[in-house]
Amino acid sequence: MRAALLAEYHRPLELVDRPEPEPSGPRSVVVRIGGAGVCATDLHAIDGLMEPAGVRLPVVLGHENAGWVHSVGDGVTAAAVGDPVLLYPAWSCGLCVPCRRGQDVFCERHEFTGLTRDGGFAEYVLVDERSIIPLPEGVEPADVAPHSDAGITAYHAVKKLVPRLQPGSTAAVIGVGGVGHIGLQLVRVLGAARVVAIDTDERRRALARELGADEVLGEDADVASAARELTDGAGVDVVVDFVGTDETHSSALGMLARQGIYSIVGYGGTVSHPSVGFVTGETVVTGNLVGNWIDLWEVLRLHASGSVTLRSERHPLEEVNDVLEKLRQGEVTGRAVLVP
Amino acid sequence: MRAALLAEYHRPLELVDRPEPEPSGPRSVVVRIGGAGVCATDLHAIDGLMEPAGVRLPVVLGHENAGWVHSVGDGVTAAAVGDPVLLYPAWSCGLCVPCRRGQDVFCERHEFTGLTRDGGFAEYVLVDERSIIPLPEGVEPADVAPHSDAGITAYHAVKKLVPRLQPGSTAAVIGVGGVGHIGLQLVRVLGAARVVAIDTDERRRALARELGADEVLGEDADVASAARELTDGAGVDVVVDFVGTDETHSSALGMLARQGIYSIVGYGGTVSHPSVGFVTGETVVTGNLVGNWIDLWEVLRLHASGSVTLRSERHPLEEVNDVLEKLRQGEVTGRAVLVP
Amino acid sequence: MRAALLAEYHRPLELVDRPEPEPSGPRSVVVRIGGAGVCATDLHAIDGLMEPAGVRLPVVLGHENAGWVHSVGDGVTAAAVGDPVLLYPAWSCGLCVPCRRGQDVFCERHEFTGLTRDGGFAEYVLVDERSIIPLPEGVEPADVAPHSDAGITAYHAVKKLVPRLQPGSTAAVIGVGGVGHIGLQLVRVLGAARVVAIDTDERRRALARELGADEVLGEDADVASAARELTDGAGVDVVVDFVGTDETHSSALGMLARQGIYSIVGYGGTVSHPSVGFVTGETVVTGNLVGNWIDLWEVLRLHASGSVTLRSERHPLEEVNDVLEKLRQGEVTGRAVLVP
Amino acid sequence: MRAALLAEYHRPLELVDRPEPEPSGPRSVVVRIGGAGVCATDLHAIDGLMEPAGVRLPVVLGHENAGWVHSVGDGVTAAAVGDPVLLYPAWSCGLCVPCRRGQDVFCERHEFTGLTRDGGFAEYVLVDERSIIPLPEGVEPADVAPHSDAGITAYHAVKKLVPRLQPGSTAAVIGVGGVGHIGLQLVRVLGAARVVAIDTDERRRALARELGADEVLGEDADVASAARELTDGAGVDVVVDFVGTDETHSSALGMLARQGIYSIVGYGGTVSHPSVGFVTGETVVTGNLVGNWIDLWEVLRLHASGSVTLRSERHPLEEVNDVLEKLRQGEVTGRAVLVP
Repeated sequence: MRAALLAEYHRPLELVDRPEPEPSGPRSVVVRIGGAGVCATDLHAIDGLMEPAGVRLPVVLGHENAGWVHSVGDGVTAAAVGDPVLLYPAWSCGLCVPCRRGQDVFCERHEFTGLTRDGGFAEYVLVDERSIIPLPEGVEPADVAPHSDAGITAYHAVKKLVPRLQPGSTAAVIGVGGVGHIGLQLVRVLGAARVVAIDTDERRRALARELGADEVLGEDADVASAARELTDGAGVDVVVDFVGTDETHSSALGMLARQGIYSIVGYGGTVSHPSVGFVTGETVVTGNLVGNWIDLWEVLRLHASGSVTLRSERHPLEEVNDVLEKLRQGEVTGRAVLVP
Repeated sequence: MRAALLAEYHRPLELVDRPEPEPSGPRSVVVRIGGAGVCATDLHAIDGLMEPAGVRLPVVLGHENAGWVHSVGDGVTAAAVGDPVLLYPAWSCGLCVPCRRGQDVFCERHEFTGLTRDGGFAEYVLVDERSIIPLPEGVEPADVAPHSDAGITAYHAVKKLVPRLQPGSTAAVIGVGGVGHIGLQLVRVLGAARVVAIDTDERRRALARELGADEVLGEDADVASAARELTDGAGVDVVVDFVGTDETHSSALGMLARQGIYSIVGYGGTVSHPSVGFVTGETVVTGNLVGNWIDLWEVLRLHASGSVTLRSERHPLEEVNDVLEKLRQGEVTGRAVLVP
Repeated sequence: MRAALLAEYHRPLELVDRPEPEPSGPRSVVVRIGGAGVCATDLHAIDGLMEPAGVRLPVVLGHENAGWVHSVGDGVTAAAVGDPVLLYPAWSCGLCVPCRRGQDVFCERHEFTGLTRDGGFAEYVLVDERSIIPLPEGVEPADVAPHSDAGITAYHAVKKLVPRLQPGSTAAVIGVGGVGHIGLQLVRVLGAARVVAIDTDERRRALARELGADEVLGEDADVASAARELTDGAGVDVVVDFVGTDETHSSALGMLARQGIYSIVGYGGTVSHPSVGFVTGETVVTGNLVGNWIDLWEVLRLHASGSVTLRSERHPLEEVNDVLEKLRQGEVTGRAVLVP
Repeated sequence: MRAALLAEYHRPLELVDRPEPEPSGPRSVVVRIGGAGVCATDLHAIDGLMEPAGVRLPVVLGHENAGWVHSVGDGVTAAAVGDPVLLYPAWSCGLCVPCRRGQDVFCERHEFTGLTRDGGFAEYVLVDERSIIPLPEGVEPADVAPHSDAGITAYHAVKKLVPRLQPGSTAAVIGVGGVGHIGLQLVRVLGAARVVAIDTDERRRALARELGADEVLGEDADVASAARELTDGAGVDVVVDFVGTDETHSSALGMLARQGIYSIVGYGGTVSHPSVGFVTGETVVTGNLVGNWIDLWEVLRLHASGSVTLRSERHPLEEVNDVLEKLRQGEVTGRAVLVP
């Protein structure tokens, strides 16, 4: 089969021919890829930054995968050959304490499709049946592939904030890109707060308006002051940051109301804040990993009911390196999906 | 009446004669002081650091007050003359949105006895009836005065952590001083986690052992590594920091397990942590102010049932400056209480 | 002033001339009525059923009041003469333990405008300033008066259910009348569940469709089976019952999924369920009183942002007995509001 | 091997010779029994009442099992031969939505060791590796076997109540038998409420005193009034009922304070309560099944730390019918454990 291989860091992926995977155990499943989303984490992997997360070369990238079950091990009960499925990217054992709490992402035997195991920038991918989510009727694999990572990352972060998105509160979303444009919708759908979207790119600000943001900021540099003005000086109750630079860390803390929550999804900078500020504001800063299997199952319900839409563009697998470059240049609005 | 006045920063308090206060409105209450706790915040006020919190000179210090109702305005229903009472230090209007949520400490018309209004290092103090908590039978005012600030500050912080103090988890308490020695007990009483107490002072480590800590650290500098060792490398699930220096901020984040919560009560340093750390660990950092009226009411139940004890020492009001100096030198174990 | 007095049970209200109320204490407020909602509880009062709630004759009915501040006691800070305001109906002291938890409705000194004190079926009403909520810009008193009871009763009940209204779940709303038509909207706005509306009256079923219900039942008697069918036999995760008869109690329990919550707002019948059913289903049955002040403040935000609309019809105060009769006959869709 | 077989309803178990089980799949585990607790559910099974739960004859009873791993399928990773283990009784697939939420007991492919599959009143038992919990160092299998059902049933119920067991509240525990004597301890250890134990049997009341109940009732029939008296008429905030007859249902609702929770564990009677009572009290009635795997893991931490003790008595497997009879007569204090 064709596959896009990361063979060497800082080099384009190599389009190679690889043996088609086969079920390797009673609970393993081979899925024919219908679509695979392209994520900033793929750029991090190419840049050699994902070794702490367990990446070893060579590896086929692609962790936002959906398609059809192609073949199954003899103990598989979660799906049958031919079923359209979405693939949760984290591998989990189902036996350790975090797994038994539903926190698959903290599984003690953690693996990750497309990072520590061959992923979906290929015609087929091999996964465990604990990765499988059958698609609701009428949902196309390529249409929902990006939910596998972008969708649940946004959902996992926003869901924890719901008790604070009550009527009368204000929430800011920093970054309206692949993950953030889903996050923005989730803040609206799951909560009752006024929503302020912030992005430095006018195309993304336009997308934010289209997706229902009550206010859109980012044209001017000092977004913290602008956000405070919108709230008569009180500040914003919740900030979800899908960017995560020194600048956004500082802006976010600068616009936060007392008892505010700053929730970090994108990362890269350093959060630096005097403890007296934490205390007098009862400020909370919290980070979020990718979500759990159940988060993906729930996101898929929102997608099927039309409450959340994915902005995406499709490209043939062969164009993978062009697409990665486009993403690196900030020229993808929403999410790019590779189709083999 | 005698009162200890802060007339000038960086100088001892002046023992002066002041007119006895009288009820200034239908809901005001004059309380004869039975005891007034001495707090590190009093040192901050003397050092001129509390102006951002509204301190203006001259002012009578003393915010941990208990005593007996001496006279009342004509609309007072919360207590009668002669009743033994504990005084919640924050003034609140009962009308604004935070007050209606029970968050008195965020009242839009916030005042604070002993900081922005004359306090209890005196024979009498004037408060609003929303400050009053009648004492349960058999509880002496001077015995519980420190709960007014030390008690509820610890309680407010620990209460939020209870859902994470479940069986199988580990909690660390940094600092076993006036607030921390209550916090340590509360972590034990309200939760089911293993409790690690950390202090650099051997007398306080001894107090921690006496109060039931499962493990006591602090003799060696590298407490983060020591705490990790106690948890087989996994780290500590919850850290409550009653000290709050650059060192404790760094140690606390260094000993934290994945999905850990770092709860800050003491302050002074700067929390500095890369956002990738927040994300991969789903780390939470949170700050805590003094608690609300209802926190004090609840702490008092724990005191009355014997679940929490206060380690304190009494001194006559006249020795206020000696006591403040002793506190500054770290020579008070538990809490000092001034009796007029 | 004109007022509609309940002077004798089982008789029409008497339109009488009464002295205009004046502020009776430093915190009391007289409000000129802009509109007063008419509620089934008024019928219960006329029928002599509200004595256990403290009703004593004669009394001016009317507990869903809004208008403009007419005069104030000398200690009032919550509003100024001329301000448009909505009136929270329960009186609360702000001093007792329930009040300090924000649970005004459980105040130990509980009173209720329009039941235990003269209400708003009149030109003026006297309240305490803890009842006042200033209206947001552009909101007319008569337009929001029914939120004072209908709105917060629905909100208080639905808010508690939000954690169970997650994507993939199903919620049923029984009764789309004065309270229920708000409840239906709140289930949609605050949650992400599929919403099934149930009513025996076709006009109300039409209203439910208009307000966005995903499914509407009630034409056939066996709604429990119909609801089960909609969920492939699994049952409904949450039922909110705005009717509360033996029939709805039985239907609701019959349609409930495992781990389901049955939330009762309307009342009248008896809930009878074998404890083995509670256990094997981990069933929860819960009741709800009118909400707290903060609930009303939050509902008003939803109203101002357009997230919730009130279906109402206005009538002059003089028609009060006709309106009550119309309500008794089930001929009011939404809420009737009396304007003096 | 020897096994106690339920071959016919309403008859003593038959002590028979059965083939020793062998691993039936890659994830199956055979455990040599160290001890098996005897539960009232075994009596229900003998009485033919457990068919709705899936019991089919013949079956080896025994669902509270602990022992040592004897042999394993080739895919087992959760334990190794020789490991001392406690066995969670519910079988779960780890793949369905309830499993992914950690709610094993609602697994769509639910089975139950000792009811729908052969259990531990035998020398060996066959389970899935998702049933396995390795024992902490120093814990003997027979000492903890009853936690498998009695322990987690109590824990699962009490854990949900923790937010309401705050200082100043009162909790009542009805029934201090096999499950209730653990529940009583858990209310004390996990919460900060005053604890009232209620039992009709003096031996159990003595046990309640020994286990730290603040008050013990049950000598007089009218426990509802007695409990109200203890709370100055306000009523009890939380009632956990380990008995579950018409009498306890009525008493529990009769002693409940406003905003009270009535949590049902034992069952048998019918809960009958007018909906006006649910509404005016904001009463909650909730039922509880056996807990989840993670509940058992957590209970085991409490056992290992000494926070919870099991009152139990050991008998040889051969005496199974005598022990069942003793249980039926109410002559077992705490829990009986069969040792093969």
